[in-house]
Amino acid sequence: MNINQKAVDALRILSADQIQKANSGHPGLPLGAAPAAYELWANHMNHNPQNPNWSNRDRFILSAGHGSALLYSLLHMFGYEGLTIDELKNFRQLDHLTPGHPEYGHTVGVEATTGPLGAGVSTAVGMAIAESHLAAKFNRDGYPVVDHYTFAMTGDGCLMEGISYEALSLAGTLKLGKLIVLYDSNDITIEGNTETAFKEDVAKRFEAFGFQVQIVEDGNDLKAIGEAIDAAKADLERPSIIICRTQIGYGCPAKVGKASAHGEPLGEENILELRKFLGWESNEAFEVPEEIYSHYDSIAKENAIQEDKWNSMFEKYCTEYPELKEQWDIYHSDIDVENIINSEEYWKHESKAMATRAVSGDLINKLKEIYPNMIGGSADLAPSNKSEMKNEGFFSPENRLGRNIHFGVREMAMTAITNGIYLHGGLKPFCATFFVFSDFMKPMIRLAALMGLPVAYVLTHDSIGVGEDGPTHEPVEQLAMLRSIPNVNVFRPADYTETAVAWASAMGSKSTPTAIVLTRQNLPQIEGSSKDAFKGAYVISEASNKDSIDLILLASGSEVELAVNAKAVLEGEGKSVRVVSVPCMDIFDKQSKEYKEEVLPSNVRARLAVEAGGTMPWFKYVGIDGDVVGMTSFGASAPASVLFKHFGFTTENVVERAKKLMF
Amino acid sequence: MNINQKAVDALRILSADQIQKANSGHPGLPLGAAPAAYELWANHMNHNPQNPNWSNRDRFILSAGHGSALLYSLLHMFGYEGLTIDELKNFRQLDHLTPGHPEYGHTVGVEATTGPLGAGVSTAVGMAIAESHLAAKFNRDGYPVVDHYTFAMTGDGCLMEGISYEALSLAGTLKLGKLIVLYDSNDITIEGNTETAFKEDVAKRFEAFGFQVQIVEDGNDLKAIGEAIDAAKADLERPSIIICRTQIGYGCPAKVGKASAHGEPLGEENILELRKFLGWESNEAFEVPEEIYSHYDSIAKENAIQEDKWNSMFEKYCTEYPELKEQWDIYHSDIDVENIINSEEYWKHESKAMATRAVSGDLINKLKEIYPNMIGGSADLAPSNKSEMKNEGFFSPENRLGRNIHFGVREMAMTAITNGIYLHGGLKPFCATFFVFSDFMKPMIRLAALMGLPVAYVLTHDSIGVGEDGPTHEPVEQLAMLRSIPNVNVFRPADYTETAVAWASAMGSKSTPTAIVLTRQNLPQIEGSSKDAFKGAYVISEASNKDSIDLILLASGSEVELAVNAKAVLEGEGKSVRVVSVPCMDIFDKQSKEYKEEVLPSNVRARLAVEAGGTMPWFKYVGIDGDVVGMTSFGASAPASVLFKHFGFTTENVVERAKKLMF
Repeated sequence: MNINQKAVDALRILSADQIQKANSGHPGLPLGAAPAAYELWANHMNHNPQNPNWSNRDRFILSAGHGSALLYSLLHMFGYEGLTIDELKNFRQLDHLTPGHPEYGHTVGVEATTGPLGAGVSTAVGMAIAESHLAAKFNRDGYPVVDHYTFAMTGDGCLMEGISYEALSLAGTLKLGKLIVLYDSNDITIEGNTETAFKEDVAKRFEAFGFQVQIVEDGNDLKAIGEAIDAAKADLERPSIIICRTQIGYGCPAKVGKASAHGEPLGEENILELRKFLGWESNEAFEVPEEIYSHYDSIAKENAIQEDKWNSMFEKYCTEYPELKEQWDIYHSDIDVENIINSEEYWKHESKAMATRAVSGDLINKLKEIYPNMIGGSADLAPSNKSEMKNEGFFSPENRLGRNIHFGVREMAMTAITNGIYLHGGLKPFCATFFVFSDFMKPMIRLAALMGLPVAYVLTHDSIGVGEDGPTHEPVEQLAMLRSIPNVNVFRPADYTETAVAWASAMGSKSTPTAIVLTRQNLPQIEGSSKDAFKGAYVISEASNKDSIDLILLASGSEVELAVNAKAVLEGEGKSVRVVSVPCMDIFDKQSKEYKEEVLPSNVRARLAVEAGGTMPWFKYVGIDGDVVGMTSFGASAPASVLFKHFGFTTENVVERAKKLMF
Repeated sequence: MNINQKAVDALRILSADQIQKANSGHPGLPLGAAPAAYELWANHMNHNPQNPNWSNRDRFILSAGHGSALLYSLLHMFGYEGLTIDELKNFRQLDHLTPGHPEYGHTVGVEATTGPLGAGVSTAVGMAIAESHLAAKFNRDGYPVVDHYTFAMTGDGCLMEGISYEALSLAGTLKLGKLIVLYDSNDITIEGNTETAFKEDVAKRFEAFGFQVQIVEDGNDLKAIGEAIDAAKADLERPSIIICRTQIGYGCPAKVGKASAHGEPLGEENILELRKFLGWESNEAFEVPEEIYSHYDSIAKENAIQEDKWNSMFEKYCTEYPELKEQWDIYHSDIDVENIINSEEYWKHESKAMATRAVSGDLINKLKEIYPNMIGGSADLAPSNKSEMKNEGFFSPENRLGRNIHFGVREMAMTAITNGIYLHGGLKPFCATFFVFSDFMKPMIRLAALMGLPVAYVLTHDSIGVGEDGPTHEPVEQLAMLRSIPNVNVFRPADYTETAVAWASAMGSKSTPTAIVLTRQNLPQIEGSSKDAFKGAYVISEASNKDSIDLILLASGSEVELAVNAKAVLEGEGKSVRVVSVPCMDIFDKQSKEYKEEVLPSNVRARLAVEAGGTMPWFKYVGIDGDVVGMTSFGASAPASVLFKHFGFTTENVVERAKKLMF
């Protein structure tokens, strides 16, 4: 048996052993797809296990994240830092590098957290966009300093999920020629044969998307796989898909071709059968012959040479193009947010009423100057979202330098692609749509939060203020939805200053995504609004008698004005009323106990929150003695002013509800 | 000019007038797609404006819901009840029948609420499934009592959304030959030409899905449209798409073919130009010549004859097949939920510990006998979700009688299809997946809630109890997400009895979807659990001194056991502790003030909630004096028992946190 075959089988054996030891995991894909993974990693992918952060490495995403054991086996055999055999023995155990699904930031060499099907391959599209944009920006004749491929390995599940269609249809439109999808096509899903639910002609589908389509009939044929990868790499005009026909659970007689191979350990006896079938030399779990380790080592060393060559080239490039080197450094480092905070220009604004979406549009166009690596776009709503960076062009096959992206009507893929752009490195991405459609973004926002990616979401048309478009377009519960996700900062600013704080916070974030929730309708500039908004909540209008407060009004966004107006009425009637603006609960909740007590003194129990959204998020502040003026049903179709009145967002109603709390 | 052309132009004029009067709306699609809509409604669709609820009518869904003015114009011209010219004049105004996007249950003749793109056409797939299932069940030779088409009209946006790929790929697999999609292909989206973001070959894509594909080159050619619809109807093996090449804003010289035609009123001047271009006789807004009304009337009358014929057939059918007539009545009426509540068999269970997902599986198999029209399935997780109805087969081209549906890995489409099955009438659908993937279902759950559809969601693997699969598969914030949606009942039952209550509540619901959130891991049967769970929350374990309660512990699902255990410890130390089980907050919140006070006496402020999910939903009960033992971060990959300990879900920790509240 040749060494390549042994090297493939090592991946199979190690994967099966990990899953068996954990008594949990998915052996089906590793057994079937090991040859394709091996051929790619050993003979086609530029990667340096000694430096997983090499900027010009080829990217690999295991979109079928349940096959994580295969990825850990690869990382182990290639000698990636930390991925010792002991870590493999602790597959799926707490505080180890080998969790059930691959986790970015947790395990070296994992380019993206995957598991929710379709997410990985969509994230890969973002990486390919980033590569081609940065290549256009930085490459010069003889200096392809950004020049790599992005590979994604998918199963049937990934290709059934809507997000993969969205992302890959866009990849075809954008002619991302350096995106290569390896499709582990084994005809089996959890409920049985793909015939039952997935009879589409996948090859034809990808032709429709503008992909180069190749079929490898025998997924064990390393040569055929290799030739297909070569051909895929050679086509720079079209993204590629290589359909590898494989057998789920290959090598395990009792399991091969069966749904039961997918997601449960093979069992001790079947693993012995597997070893026999493969002609594996040892029956000891986790034992790999030294010869195979040496083989992998030699490949890893060759690969390291690729980076050496790139380093030499890059060194010359820096000398020849010092101005580009300077730009490169800006792109590849965190720009200090103090640049924003200290910029007078950034905070300057007129006193007239403005929709916060329009404010955000102005800010984006200020920020794009400070952050030359800012890139973003909208899901076909740029004119409404005010998300376009003026004079920066649109990213397209003809204009790779365009900083605006037409994502099309594809909110979920947009969000995954934004994750991918960030993960690639070098760029600061954002994306935009109507707030109500954050529903479609949610699964990918969750992944951004889990990975700790400081991306930004521009979410406009944030309440019944949408008006005539009606309840399908009016957010109600979306604030609760986003605020409940761990590690997401949700800002709902009240005016220019608070919107500027939200954007500065987003740009300064290191590991937290930021959602910026903005109005369609005009809002006044609020007296008292200030950079204290960086604390998440602050006293925007103090009570007449600070030492004896009768009531605290809390509000966010468009309702801060309403709270201030209600306060004026109540103060006119002799009450001492404080107004607290709460642009970002997530950040306020992280302030010191003292600051929180200062803003919301625990002895003041008459507390009324006002927000044109669901009430759930406010009870942690108003408690059971307080009240919330919010939305308890869906909205309706009518002019916004009519709706605000209809749903009780009037000074009169807020005053009335407040009085009930003060007895 | 012939009368058909005038009839088409009437739709254009009325649509433009509605939008102009409202000063808000989307004229682009109505102007472009009026011919296709007219040809379909006038000459191909079986519908009786006098009886919009005729069970065998053809269904029509305007998936491009922003074109609502076109739909209202059709309903008005055909004389649907309530759609007077005055309603058209009040387009997009509060308390009128003509909201910004079509709303099911609000306006007669609207088959589904649409607006979020892609939703409508996916819902149509559900209607086509329902039709073919009911046809197989009820039709007999010479008696096609269920025999109608389902039409959906889409724009570019619908076809870019991932959900439409999911649903239509499944439609092809299932050979839903009576589903016909009319695609208004006008090459324009909000951000400009579709070339920028949507260059896929749509015809080829639908061939890949197994559709019959036809292209009508001139979307104004009524004859060509009619022939295409005839050919689509004739092909009963394949669903069909008719690609109508149209011009957005047709007839309005200043707007035609421009993105600006999409979503803003044409303007008075342009409307005059439109009238001129069309050769329209009157310049008065909303004025339609009597001759055109008469034309529509005569069509409507002919259509009524279709229903008369069907009624005669159905009458004979009932005589000839009395046992089917009996079944028909069962399918088409609400089965009294008392059938469940009074069934001893339904409540009977063993005392051993069981995962609530397994309990749910048992209940589904009991319910399927009581509800012969129950139908449902999973997004490729039926074995894990325990959602299969045994011995009922799987719905497929070969077995239309199958009551289980293989939805494939398509959570969002599954949810929309479930909506469609319900909307069709005659069936009681549910669908299932892992709870964490409710993220993908969310936009369509929202539509179910907005439409008031009593569908059921089986959501298993509900917490860190998922274990080894890790944080991508462990729900944290999903309970807050679902509980925050208006009009959704979210149950998280603690044992058999509470799960049985959840299912009974779902089956008895008239206008509210029910989410049933279930564990992967075994749970004991709790002493004290009872049908009081129908109230949403109840005292499951009373304090030793009911009149002097030191602490209230609140919990749901798997944490009720934990609360009961913590109570035992605290009572052992002399405290008087009540445990409240909260299987459904949404229902508890609707109970009388007295009942709520009885369960949670306002004088007891030491309240600790315990739930292995985000804390947000609980503060309305525990207030600012209470506390929540919940998840404040994402989960991790490890065996479930390790994780529960790691994240503080232990008796010791609950006891400790409780003591802090009691000073």
